[in-house]
Amino acid sequence: MKLPKEFSLAEIAAVAGGTLEGPADTKVDSVALDPFNAKSGELALLFDPKLVKRIRDCKASAVIVPKGVSTDLPKVVVERPLLSLARILSAVKPKRFRPEPGIHPTALIDPTCRLGDNVAVGPYVVVGPQTVIGNNTVIMASCVIGGAVSIGQDCLLYPSCLIDDYVQIGNRVILQQGASLGSDGFGYVTERPSNVERRMAGVTEASDEPNPLIKIPQIGTVIVEDDVEIGSYTTVDRATMGATTIGKGAKIDNQVMIAHNTRIGREVIIIAQTAVAGSCVVGDRTVIAGCTGVKDHVKIGKDAIIEGMSGVLKDIPDGALVSGVPAVPAREFFTQLAHINKLPQMFKEVRELKRKLAELESLLPECQLVKQGDNAGN
Amino acid sequence: MKLPKEFSLAEIAAVAGGTLEGPADTKVDSVALDPFNAKSGELALLFDPKLVKRIRDCKASAVIVPKGVSTDLPKVVVERPLLSLARILSAVKPKRFRPEPGIHPTALIDPTCRLGDNVAVGPYVVVGPQTVIGNNTVIMASCVIGGAVSIGQDCLLYPSCLIDDYVQIGNRVILQQGASLGSDGFGYVTERPSNVERRMAGVTEASDEPNPLIKIPQIGTVIVEDDVEIGSYTTVDRATMGATTIGKGAKIDNQVMIAHNTRIGREVIIIAQTAVAGSCVVGDRTVIAGCTGVKDHVKIGKDAIIEGMSGVLKDIPDGALVSGVPAVPAREFFTQLAHINKLPQMFKEVRELKRKLAELESLLPECQLVKQGDNAGN
Amino acid sequence: MKLPKEFSLAEIAAVAGGTLEGPADTKVDSVALDPFNAKSGELALLFDPKLVKRIRDCKASAVIVPKGVSTDLPKVVVERPLLSLARILSAVKPKRFRPEPGIHPTALIDPTCRLGDNVAVGPYVVVGPQTVIGNNTVIMASCVIGGAVSIGQDCLLYPSCLIDDYVQIGNRVILQQGASLGSDGFGYVTERPSNVERRMAGVTEASDEPNPLIKIPQIGTVIVEDDVEIGSYTTVDRATMGATTIGKGAKIDNQVMIAHNTRIGREVIIIAQTAVAGSCVVGDRTVIAGCTGVKDHVKIGKDAIIEGMSGVLKDIPDGALVSGVPAVPAREFFTQLAHINKLPQMFKEVRELKRKLAELESLLPECQLVKQGDNAGN
Repeated sequence: MKLPKEFSLAEIAAVAGGTLEGPADTKVDSVALDPFNAKSGELALLFDPKLVKRIRDCKASAVIVPKGVSTDLPKVVVERPLLSLARILSAVKPKRFRPEPGIHPTALIDPTCRLGDNVAVGPYVVVGPQTVIGNNTVIMASCVIGGAVSIGQDCLLYPSCLIDDYVQIGNRVILQQGASLGSDGFGYVTERPSNVERRMAGVTEASDEPNPLIKIPQIGTVIVEDDVEIGSYTTVDRATMGATTIGKGAKIDNQVMIAHNTRIGREVIIIAQTAVAGSCVVGDRTVIAGCTGVKDHVKIGKDAIIEGMSGVLKDIPDGALVSGVPAVPAREFFTQLAHINKLPQMFKEVRELKRKLAELESLLPECQLVKQGDNAGN
Repeated sequence: MKLPKEFSLAEIAAVAGGTLEGPADTKVDSVALDPFNAKSGELALLFDPKLVKRIRDCKASAVIVPKGVSTDLPKVVVERPLLSLARILSAVKPKRFRPEPGIHPTALIDPTCRLGDNVAVGPYVVVGPQTVIGNNTVIMASCVIGGAVSIGQDCLLYPSCLIDDYVQIGNRVILQQGASLGSDGFGYVTERPSNVERRMAGVTEASDEPNPLIKIPQIGTVIVEDDVEIGSYTTVDRATMGATTIGKGAKIDNQVMIAHNTRIGREVIIIAQTAVAGSCVVGDRTVIAGCTGVKDHVKIGKDAIIEGMSGVLKDIPDGALVSGVPAVPAREFFTQLAHINKLPQMFKEVRELKRKLAELESLLPECQLVKQGDNAGN
Repeated sequence: MKLPKEFSLAEIAAVAGGTLEGPADTKVDSVALDPFNAKSGELALLFDPKLVKRIRDCKASAVIVPKGVSTDLPKVVVERPLLSLARILSAVKPKRFRPEPGIHPTALIDPTCRLGDNVAVGPYVVVGPQTVIGNNTVIMASCVIGGAVSIGQDCLLYPSCLIDDYVQIGNRVILQQGASLGSDGFGYVTERPSNVERRMAGVTEASDEPNPLIKIPQIGTVIVEDDVEIGSYTTVDRATMGATTIGKGAKIDNQVMIAHNTRIGREVIIIAQTAVAGSCVVGDRTVIAGCTGVKDHVKIGKDAIIEGMSGVLKDIPDGALVSGVPAVPAREFFTQLAHINKLPQMFKEVRELKRKLAELESLLPECQLVKQGDNAGN
């Protein structure tokens, strides 16, 4: 990856927040994507212990390494490699094409809206009545924002984000392409008990009589607090009453579904294709890995880790590490797996036990005869 | 939640379709989101038996409760709490910002389209040739509708819905933000048998020769019957031939995938992030809970319940309640789980059985000696 | 399904690439969706061996069948039914409504873009600076394309596709409605070790001190090679550095998530609602069935088959057929299932073994007495 200019290793050390070890005037003009195909003039990042072991194979002009790595290459030693990476990438990131401050002539902003200073609104954006947008916020092409929405300062909305009426968004929020906030929560009821309800109450015969699903109006909203990032095509539904809430600093990946009335805590991380059903509570800093499902009304504590592809059906305490469907403590999950893997062996052992026991039993009558004979002989 | 005006309890009873028990002129001006933090002037809803038990802790001015709840608070007693909730929310729902009847000057409607009375089309909507839109239908900003589409009366399309050519939509259909109807079904074939096909036929060595995937044209369509609701970023693919069909009154949540040629029955409920593969049939009133996958060509009967995160690989009869991957009757699924949970204990018991049996066997030769000795002594 | 005109069976045989058996002038004017409800004048396709068995019930005027089917109906015999289907559907497909070559007056194309010959750009499309679009490419309504993007020749972008800056798209690529390429990869780091990191390092007490998540800039891009098709609302994230890559001829269904830095091989097939996490490699021609999750940094070989709803946590070799969560060879998975299904029976057997063994043990002391008595009697 070509850098925007040539950097000295001293400059790299300053940006990365690391310690220079080697000639300060070593020059690099690109970052090697693969440290083991690095060429002269390239800087290689060797953060992973598995890669560090192979550092002799690295032909880069300089390396960035964690503490304790021995190499003769000019190097910058860093404490927290990922943090240094974030700093370096921030320093070298290429220009992105975003609308300049001002309202594109094709953007349709209702005259009752209030916009802060330096707001940038791209082409074909539509904003409904009474909406408020804070200073320096950038709204890219084709976003559709309803009425009475509030969006804070320094936000960045990528193209085609869809924000329905009354949604409240804090400061420094990033919405990736097509994030959808405020569509209706999913709730219906029938006039008379439905077949499903009757079945749950023990009535097994189903009725074919019309008993249509009636929509329960979803009159609540969505609140997204400061510093949240929401991924592409993630949907956050409005609450039936009150608000579905995404806590300060939470980061939500693409294609995540957050259902009505759910409250996501602060600094929570939710990875792609996870669905959190209605009326759940997820505690601060909890991480929910990808493709997970959380049942409605479940409470997940803070600082918990839900491993990927889990199905959370019950409350999870603070700090728990869970896995599986239904999710159980990860240790238990791996014990289950280990036992399941040993089932063929165990079935064999049980068959063997049966065989041996049958053999023993076939001998037993003789034993008993002996006993009886012995008694008889007394 | 603030109500739009102050209501008397008599008015609430009328709206909720319940029986007033207490002073008719009790006034409420808001609904308590948490019944146990309700204040004077608030109305609390206590529907859940778990909440009802704690009714003494409720300090609301009035409550709505199901039959048989004993409390001194002014109350409205209702038969079907959720139905009453739907009625109350309908009565108090705040104004939503939707386009007025008429065509926004920026909407591009092909001159060959036929639009009914009172149709409202928002800004930047695009509608292709020969499309027909029924009376009172509202199409919000930035929807893109293809050619020869038909949309019935009284429909509501939220922003950025994408409807491709020939799709047919009934009356009173609601499409949430970004619903996608009529994208191509997923079907390919190779000129010669692919490695996967050859493998399935027992040929294990793979070929690297070019044998590209050829698209099977998807020339069918999508039919959405009356009273259907489809969620945000749900996709319904067009059929290869014929039509993918969503039956009357079905309700589909966000991020659901309905593949080509599948037929969803009437009043079916499908919850978020479920995928129903191609050529499936789902019977009337069946409920498919979230994050479920249904294999192609599967037939699910009517009035069935598919629990969340299931994987349906085989046909499911009418009225069945299934769970798991692969989905089995829920009772069987929970039996499986219970047995899996007991595996560590059971492995221990088998080890113990082996130990005891070995002990017995080590004694047995002596027993046999006895027997022989005894025989010898005869 | 009505055909655009009447065809003779000879014409059908020519289009399908099959052998005519029966009168060449047999006429058909439509294709039967259900071969067993076919009427006179209809052509029925009987590809599936299950359907072929019932061919006597087919009243169509002509049939298309694979080799070896015996029937008196006029027929076209084909080698590869699906391939013939693709050819027939190509021949009879109805007109689709797409923008004509030229730039719609409402499309906003930055003056620094370079467009090839015969490019068709629909209404309300937005294209950023320095973007290049190849000959004959069609970009439908409301697509939003960033700056410095390159799109090849003969591509088809359905409405509302979202392509962010720097993304590179090859020739003959099809993007279904709302495909999203180039949103940011999901990467964050904290200033100090987070509670999750500390927990992983054995520190169990969590800290409530502020330690916010810092975004790792995602400065790489997405490369989509020639002949790729990407489904509706699928998201392909840009790389942290370098490129997330979709290989030549790969076909990706709706609502799939491809995370940053992942490399999808050539002619790979990925079915709906699958998520492939970051930095994975998927080998050529591998098929990943629907609703599957692949953990980050996993390498899947070529010509492998990952069955639906699997969770791939470890590397998968070339040609493997895997299933389950975690994914194991399919044979192993079905063995696991079979054993799990037999657990109730097996638990019963173990209880029976315990009972019998206890019985034996209760007899044993007598046996031993016998033995002792016998000894004593010597």
